[in-house]
Amino acid sequence: MAKDGIGDEFDLIARYFAPLAAGAPGALGLTDDAAIVDLAQGERLVAAADALVAGIHFLADDPPGDIAAKIVRVNLSDLAAMGARPVGMLMTAVFPRDVTADWLEAFAQGLKADIEAFASPLIGGDTVAGDGPLTLSLTALGAVPLDKVLTRSGAKAGDGIYVSGTVGDGALGLIAAGGGIAGLGAEARDYLIGRYRVPRPRLDLGIRLLDVGNAAIDVSDGLLADLGHICDCSGAGARIRVASIPLSAAARAAVSADSGLWPKILGGGDDYELLFTVPADRTGAVSDIAAALGLDLSRIGEVTAGEGIEVEDAQDFGLELLDPGYRHFR
Amino acid sequence: MAKDGIGDEFDLIARYFAPLAAGAPGALGLTDDAAIVDLAQGERLVAAADALVAGIHFLADDPPGDIAAKIVRVNLSDLAAMGARPVGMLMTAVFPRDVTADWLEAFAQGLKADIEAFASPLIGGDTVAGDGPLTLSLTALGAVPLDKVLTRSGAKAGDGIYVSGTVGDGALGLIAAGGGIAGLGAEARDYLIGRYRVPRPRLDLGIRLLDVGNAAIDVSDGLLADLGHICDCSGAGARIRVASIPLSAAARAAVSADSGLWPKILGGGDDYELLFTVPADRTGAVSDIAAALGLDLSRIGEVTAGEGIEVEDAQDFGLELLDPGYRHFR
Repeated sequence: MAKDGIGDEFDLIARYFAPLAAGAPGALGLTDDAAIVDLAQGERLVAAADALVAGIHFLADDPPGDIAAKIVRVNLSDLAAMGARPVGMLMTAVFPRDVTADWLEAFAQGLKADIEAFASPLIGGDTVAGDGPLTLSLTALGAVPLDKVLTRSGAKAGDGIYVSGTVGDGALGLIAAGGGIAGLGAEARDYLIGRYRVPRPRLDLGIRLLDVGNAAIDVSDGLLADLGHICDCSGAGARIRVASIPLSAAARAAVSADSGLWPKILGGGDDYELLFTVPADRTGAVSDIAAALGLDLSRIGEVTAGEGIEVEDAQDFGLELLDPGYRHFR
Repeated sequence: MAKDGIGDEFDLIARYFAPLAAGAPGALGLTDDAAIVDLAQGERLVAAADALVAGIHFLADDPPGDIAAKIVRVNLSDLAAMGARPVGMLMTAVFPRDVTADWLEAFAQGLKADIEAFASPLIGGDTVAGDGPLTLSLTALGAVPLDKVLTRSGAKAGDGIYVSGTVGDGALGLIAAGGGIAGLGAEARDYLIGRYRVPRPRLDLGIRLLDVGNAAIDVSDGLLADLGHICDCSGAGARIRVASIPLSAAARAAVSADSGLWPKILGGGDDYELLFTVPADRTGAVSDIAAALGLDLSRIGEVTAGEGIEVEDAQDFGLELLDPGYRHFR
């Protein structure tokens, strides 16, 4: 056994991760080479994979339970954007060699809470002890009805463009976590940091949009960048208004204190809200969904027949030059 | 664009990885949040995920095409052990920030060759530029017939224990790559290094074992460790003979030059051969499969009603003290 009582790879899986497969017989207790996944009649599988690296997507000293929640939720957010219900997850983790039993315990507890909250068991994966930063990769498996699918490519000119919840909190939270927003109160700061650390995948919304939306994406690269993905994939353009973008009270306080933060609202990403388009004759259904879920769904513009994204009131917010989103290799 | 012409994350995916999704309409050209996976009638999904880290599972200066082949093949090997046919893969990659276009091109070519060889398209994933070692994580999706499954847990006392191909090459190849086998000829050295770098997943064998085998696993942790997994999961013991373990000519030359390498044959892992058990009344079917596939299938022992693994002739090979397999956190 290792010095801190973690044991070897097999002990670690048995102690911390195998219990997370409870309730998923196809996971075979995480003891086999692969897991078996059964869907319901009339369903088809969707799959998404995202990686998170300490120092890039989260801070190494973030609470371990929050890190666990983030790797789960950014992936479930991709399922949400396809209108899928989660059916299971496979996770590979490269832990630093000096990881402690306490850290692993808190990480596993965070996983467990989300596995239960989202009914998405851990069905497989791999653990490695490495010399680099904590690196997590997760594949989320989900199911959609055979005859329905929500993609980025279905937007049509005339569709209304909507976004759930509030936008910009993730990017501002990252700045706030670095201590960088002068004049922001502690409560607003904590709210924004929480939004950055622990996204809320809009799974119920995605499922309801299967019957209502023409296209959807989750806001991970940034509102403008993600809207750009919808436009590119749909062969359409878009017109939006900054004044219509829904902001949290904390984000409003932040941009009031420093109007130079506006570009982060539109370009910063990490919000994991759903951005979606709805044809004009289904506008009423959007209100119904908002009421049913108790979730704000804000209309921020329209899909156009043109190319590119026009921001109608960009000048009012000092937004002439916008970064179209965080791009790793730039 | 970055200094070396790679561009940003989206350019990188479009240039190197999106072409690898060709022929998989459900991959949506790698432009969407998640991929759609359709199985054939009467099939169920299996899924496996493994991560590889430079400096641990491969050497950072290994040829990029070999690294691509290894991350694909170690995962397809897990599908092989379940008797599954591959249907697609999701890969997340954390590349060093100074990765070059030439390296990525060779890596993508290696992926492409295996995607075609194994009919397993790349249907999703994520790329990140990081400060740590190259870290790859892959989830392999496969399909098995609804009414059949091959697991680690089905071994029964009296079953013959078989292994495909030859054992020990992977572990000796790692040592050889580090320059560590004195008196070994260049040809044998190259053969062993090739076996370490580029495993051969035994997919055809796994599919045929669905009707013949009681239990199967791929040899990744080491022959004894993986046999131990079968015994643990099956509630059985095993008796094997070292003299029956199939060695390549190169491995035979290596242990002749240095008999101290014998523990690496049984404990070293990285062979990705299938270790499986077959009831006595189906012994003939093993010969038929070996002939049909042109693949050696060697009987190395028997499943017992006891506990633990007895190595009958351990003393003859100086194997009193065996490491039960590579364990990351030890």
